[in-house]
Amino acid sequence: MRQTRGVRKIHVIGIGAGDPDQLTLQAVRTLQSTDVFFLLDKGEVKHDLAQLRRSLLDAHLAEGSYRVVEARDPERDRKAGGAAYSPAVGDWRSARAGIYERLIAEELDECGTGAFLVWGDPALYDSTLGILQEVLERGAVEFEYDVVPGVSSVSSLVARHRTGLNRVGRPVQITTGRRLAEGFPEGVDDVVVMLDAQQAFRRYAGEDIDIYWGAYIGTPDEILVAGPIAEAGPRIERLRAEARERKGWIMDTYLLRRSPGTG
Amino acid sequence: MRQTRGVRKIHVIGIGAGDPDQLTLQAVRTLQSTDVFFLLDKGEVKHDLAQLRRSLLDAHLAEGSYRVVEARDPERDRKAGGAAYSPAVGDWRSARAGIYERLIAEELDECGTGAFLVWGDPALYDSTLGILQEVLERGAVEFEYDVVPGVSSVSSLVARHRTGLNRVGRPVQITTGRRLAEGFPEGVDDVVVMLDAQQAFRRYAGEDIDIYWGAYIGTPDEILVAGPIAEAGPRIERLRAEARERKGWIMDTYLLRRSPGTG
Ligand SMILES: C[S@@+](CC[C@H](N)C(=O)[O-])C[C@H]1O[C@@H](n2cnc3c(N)ncnc32)[C@H](O)[C@@H]1O
Ligand SMILES: C[S@@+](CC[C@H](N)C(=O)[O-])C[C@H]1O[C@@H](n2cnc3c(N)ncnc32)[C@H](O)[C@@H]1O
Repeated sequence: MRQTRGVRKIHVIGIGAGDPDQLTLQAVRTLQSTDVFFLLDKGEVKHDLAQLRRSLLDAHLAEGSYRVVEARDPERDRKAGGAAYSPAVGDWRSARAGIYERLIAEELDECGTGAFLVWGDPALYDSTLGILQEVLERGAVEFEYDVVPGVSSVSSLVARHRTGLNRVGRPVQITTGRRLAEGFPEGVDDVVVMLDAQQAFRRYAGEDIDIYWGAYIGTPDEILVAGPIAEAGPRIERLRAEARERKGWIMDTYLLRRSPGTG
Repeated sequence: MRQTRGVRKIHVIGIGAGDPDQLTLQAVRTLQSTDVFFLLDKGEVKHDLAQLRRSLLDAHLAEGSYRVVEARDPERDRKAGGAAYSPAVGDWRSARAGIYERLIAEELDECGTGAFLVWGDPALYDSTLGILQEVLERGAVEFEYDVVPGVSSVSSLVARHRTGLNRVGRPVQITTGRRLAEGFPEGVDDVVVMLDAQQAFRRYAGEDIDIYWGAYIGTPDEILVAGPIAEAGPRIERLRAEARERKGWIMDTYLLRRSPGTG
């Protein structure tokens, strides 16, 4: 007997930040219980990342046991300046909520299970959870959802540099390049910077700060540099420019570690 | 032909923060290439955690394919007050470095591979990497080491609450209960608190802050509470006291999320 009304289920799965072996056993099991994968294409530069997602599915699932639905992500206004940032993100989020809503309503039958594969850990600078919440609030489609945590690029970065995020008993802050460009965060000496298109660390080249930098971490293109910012900074700038030229896109993260009491 | 001189290898493996399925594929493969596991017993209250480590080994390794060496961790002076914290940690670290040095020198032959299994992600409030660095600096035993990142209790906490760590374009800070008791961190509205034996969140009950709390996350004993701190706080205090009484120990973490502009 068929239930007349089921509940759609959505998994938000953190897949690690580059190394396919960073998938957790929980993520593998969750992939295996999913019917439909929603892959959002964020444009040409992210082509390699979309490939990685597909090869994860190939590696862990039997052919024919699942379906992939691709959708084009609405373009985000990346050129918006400081003040315009939040509204631009808001518009883009609603546009994206509309797409997610249609994907879930049209591509998943009423007791089907869908999944979004999120880079790194879904908790860090990723909009998937916020968008799903927005779709639920619109009320046009019902579903349940859960989250499978993943290894973030932040954890990968410091693992590759074999250092910790925090020093003993001290705090660590995770922030964006945009914010670091406005000033060194107050009250902390250990700061991880993500989403930095402008190499905001250059502003601190005269200070007593070590930088632990990594690009394409966990992939065959991985580059790591560490040292006092005055020495390592120029090297990072050069390697970053070369790599970006070569591959067409770059993904990098770094930890700034300041000598306590010099802030 | 046997090499006259090999190099000892040490893996520092993040094992996730409670759920055995949080192990990554990389962690499983690394377990499988290890000869000797060093398990440090941190006293009675952590007995359950030691059990979890053993059951991970049982689940992923063939019997007889590996060896476990147990050692007793030197007691840390937990009663030390504010100023005494760092020196106490320092002493304990050196004592621990001595133990690690002996373990590596005596229990691992010259081309053997050993591993330390670290709770959550080795990058967060864990001393293993610092101690290994100290052992190397002492110079009595040589080895190479690498780090396998893991899913932290921080990632698990927010995954279970299906929320992110940061809000769009904003920073997040990870700190200790001891520090939170001294004041709400400057420049951030999203703060994750670990190692809080005193429930420092109580100080902020009158403020416009949401708390996302979790204890024993990822284990069968998991407890989750979320809501405005004024309402959720007393509930957390009660549940925490009961659980601690029942199990004899507690492990909890929380995210404080303040309405921006009310700080
Ligand atoms: C939109 S955020 C997503 C972060 C992701 N959720 C995570 O947990 O790593 C993208 C930023 O993450 C960082 N990132 C992600 N993967 C990376 C990698 N493999 N190497 C270096 N940085 C990476 C970069 O700072 C990039 O700008
Ligand atoms: C010494 S720190 C180690 C943290 C660990 N390296 C990690 O990545 O989660 C111990 C603290 O982690 C947090 N913690 C670890 N596991 C937890 C769990 N399963 N549930 C709740 N909190 C946990 C608690 O705040 C605890 O005081």
